[in-house]
Amino acid sequence: MVEPVRVGVVGLGTVGSGVVRLLVESADHITRHAGRPIIVERAVVRDPAKPRSVHLPADRISTDIRDISRDPSISVAALLVGGLEPARSMMVELLEQGKDVVTANKALLAEHGPELFALARARGRSIAFEAAVAGGIPIVAAIGECLAANRIESIRGILNGTSNFILSTMEEDAADYAETLALAQAKGYAEADPSMDVDGTDATQKLAILAHLAFGAWVPWADIPRTGIEQVDQSLMTCAAELGYRIRLVAVAARTAAGLLALRVAPALVRVGTPLAETRGAYNAVSIVGDAVGPMFFHGLGAGQMPTASAVVADIIDTVVGRAAITFRTTGVLDADGQASPMGGDTQGRHFLRLHVSDRPGVLARITGILGEHGISIASVIQHDADADSADASVPLVIMTHRSASTAIRAAVEAIDRCDAVRGPSVCLGVLDD
Amino acid sequence: MVEPVRVGVVGLGTVGSGVVRLLVESADHITRHAGRPIIVERAVVRDPAKPRSVHLPADRISTDIRDISRDPSISVAALLVGGLEPARSMMVELLEQGKDVVTANKALLAEHGPELFALARARGRSIAFEAAVAGGIPIVAAIGECLAANRIESIRGILNGTSNFILSTMEEDAADYAETLALAQAKGYAEADPSMDVDGTDATQKLAILAHLAFGAWVPWADIPRTGIEQVDQSLMTCAAELGYRIRLVAVAARTAAGLLALRVAPALVRVGTPLAETRGAYNAVSIVGDAVGPMFFHGLGAGQMPTASAVVADIIDTVVGRAAITFRTTGVLDADGQASPMGGDTQGRHFLRLHVSDRPGVLARITGILGEHGISIASVIQHDADADSADASVPLVIMTHRSASTAIRAAVEAIDRCDAVRGPSVCLGVLDD
Repeated sequence: MVEPVRVGVVGLGTVGSGVVRLLVESADHITRHAGRPIIVERAVVRDPAKPRSVHLPADRISTDIRDISRDPSISVAALLVGGLEPARSMMVELLEQGKDVVTANKALLAEHGPELFALARARGRSIAFEAAVAGGIPIVAAIGECLAANRIESIRGILNGTSNFILSTMEEDAADYAETLALAQAKGYAEADPSMDVDGTDATQKLAILAHLAFGAWVPWADIPRTGIEQVDQSLMTCAAELGYRIRLVAVAARTAAGLLALRVAPALVRVGTPLAETRGAYNAVSIVGDAVGPMFFHGLGAGQMPTASAVVADIIDTVVGRAAITFRTTGVLDADGQASPMGGDTQGRHFLRLHVSDRPGVLARITGILGEHGISIASVIQHDADADSADASVPLVIMTHRSASTAIRAAVEAIDRCDAVRGPSVCLGVLDD
Repeated sequence: MVEPVRVGVVGLGTVGSGVVRLLVESADHITRHAGRPIIVERAVVRDPAKPRSVHLPADRISTDIRDISRDPSISVAALLVGGLEPARSMMVELLEQGKDVVTANKALLAEHGPELFALARARGRSIAFEAAVAGGIPIVAAIGECLAANRIESIRGILNGTSNFILSTMEEDAADYAETLALAQAKGYAEADPSMDVDGTDATQKLAILAHLAFGAWVPWADIPRTGIEQVDQSLMTCAAELGYRIRLVAVAARTAAGLLALRVAPALVRVGTPLAETRGAYNAVSIVGDAVGPMFFHGLGAGQMPTASAVVADIIDTVVGRAAITFRTTGVLDADGQASPMGGDTQGRHFLRLHVSDRPGVLARITGILGEHGISIASVIQHDADADSADASVPLVIMTHRSASTAIRAAVEAIDRCDAVRGPSVCLGVLDD
């Protein structure tokens, strides 16, 4: 009989309970892949009295992280609490006491990645984090290992299931944002406070992690331009649909012609029939272009108890067999020495503009003139009838541009928004045709 | 300076040349992932005089496998020749001389996998074969490592780019089989002798490999029921389209309710809007359902020089850093001790029948009666007008069934084909709705 590996689980929330359940219920199967049994030796939680459905005797649940970090029989810890503290201090304690760590906490890595990874390396430990990005989709392994022979040219991802559920449900049910958010909360797809999901924070933190793996750059997530989905309304969706598009919250990382790295998270128009447009509900999707492999597409459940547990347990197995240590060492994950590509690259693309303008002569000429002055040519214009509920006789105007530089479009939109004839700020979204 | 790893490449055809090109052109990038430089020390080919565009000095190209296998400076060999011999003898020689092997040869593994893997294990070497299935899509790593915590419930794949190009082009161009095959050959998507691609052999060999990874069963590929695409004609595609489906060559592996393993490769109706139906041209796609992760979908280029080279070089990196050895050892790849699930499980599903029947009273009643006797209920029937070019006044009859057992439908079709009123054998295809 091979000696089992003893694991400590920090946090028995949704994901932690799922991990314990998977390790117990699929023990035979997991033993085959790990080469030896994996046993949950201890779980550390905030409130041990809380009723739980998890398969763990009461005497194996306690409240002090040192019950795991100072237990010499435990070699691997799964850190499955969210937020920055006490998660950060707990990871430091675990690494300092010589534990390999597996985590699903993307906020922690996006915020404190460099220091935590440096500490792990200094102590000869590994941190595995497949579950931190896109849940069950093995995108961390795909970029870090499977596509290692490629220079990654671009990544486009739907990385937040909550906002994707809201957008695709608004579209399918012709429902408004507030009622769809309430439905998402009722179904458990959105938290009571959904702000980190709907304002793009969660997707941006995940993008920062993927961009590092793909491009070797360490970009503070808060520096990445980010727009949430709160501005997306039904009339915007209808305009997009008329042109053959849907709206998705898309995280983009691309190497520009100048060799810079362009990163952003924002709602974008995605053409009907393309994989991102067909990604619905709480699913996540990632589209990657590598110089050798060409376009690759991955689709799966990006959150939820068992899909996330699937990724955590795969990382535990990888850690147990020794693959995680190799990957952590050789790919220089979040290595401070990694060559950082400067950010803020200018990208080329089509754009979609939705304005509300005064219904009077010369306005369309004025706006198209501003676009022309910025070197932006127009692919199509749709001018709708005046809004029935508009007090100021404004009409919605939708403009689709040809390819133009993102800096040019931003400057043009600023100029347009300064026009008297334009009511309220315009909406400008990127357009993804392939 | 870290000592470089020296690699031998066997075969400088399309894939071999791509591997050398990638190792040379992306050397810096690959060095970062491998932790040290990877150098092509030697290539062994059949005809060294053949003009090649590959970046390799003439004195590093020779004809004897022993120039690689007996060179102590070479630790890893990429075996990139197709077919069974001399590929099999070459792999035996390489393993016996202590080389780790990377290969893209699915026929070799499907035919001789157990003996070759046993030999590698006996010699303490590894065989890595990501490139053998679905080209650049990292499906071998996904099943063997990333989804290791899951019991795989089913796999559905479009695993042959040639036949997918033919089917999707026939559909889009409303072209017939022979002219589309000629186009595929002109474009380099089909070989001069395309029989292994269009008769399903290639997809079946890949399915045998995936089924082993996913289910631990070693199934001789020739035992897997297999139907090629030669019977697919334009009228069949039109019937499918009327019902909201496309036709794809789908490789299926599924665990049945009885715990048996059901495997097959055959043209199937895939519902428009589902990922397999949206897989076009020379792309491959794999859809996997795991018990924890739920449905996962992968899409990418399944063949071609650089996508395949991407997978081969990723395997070379994995071998160099030591991950391949761990994976080969722990997952018991093609391990003779792996628990083999018996084959031939009965599956449940909807079916599509296309018959040509005599245009006379009572025929439809007779045929629907036979289906009823076999417990098969009918979802819809389409009876077209008589074929203009039909000499015997036969009419095409299309029947879509409700879910029924595959054994029942096979028995019913046999009985239907024995009817006087049925002209020629009927076509029966599985229907995949999700």
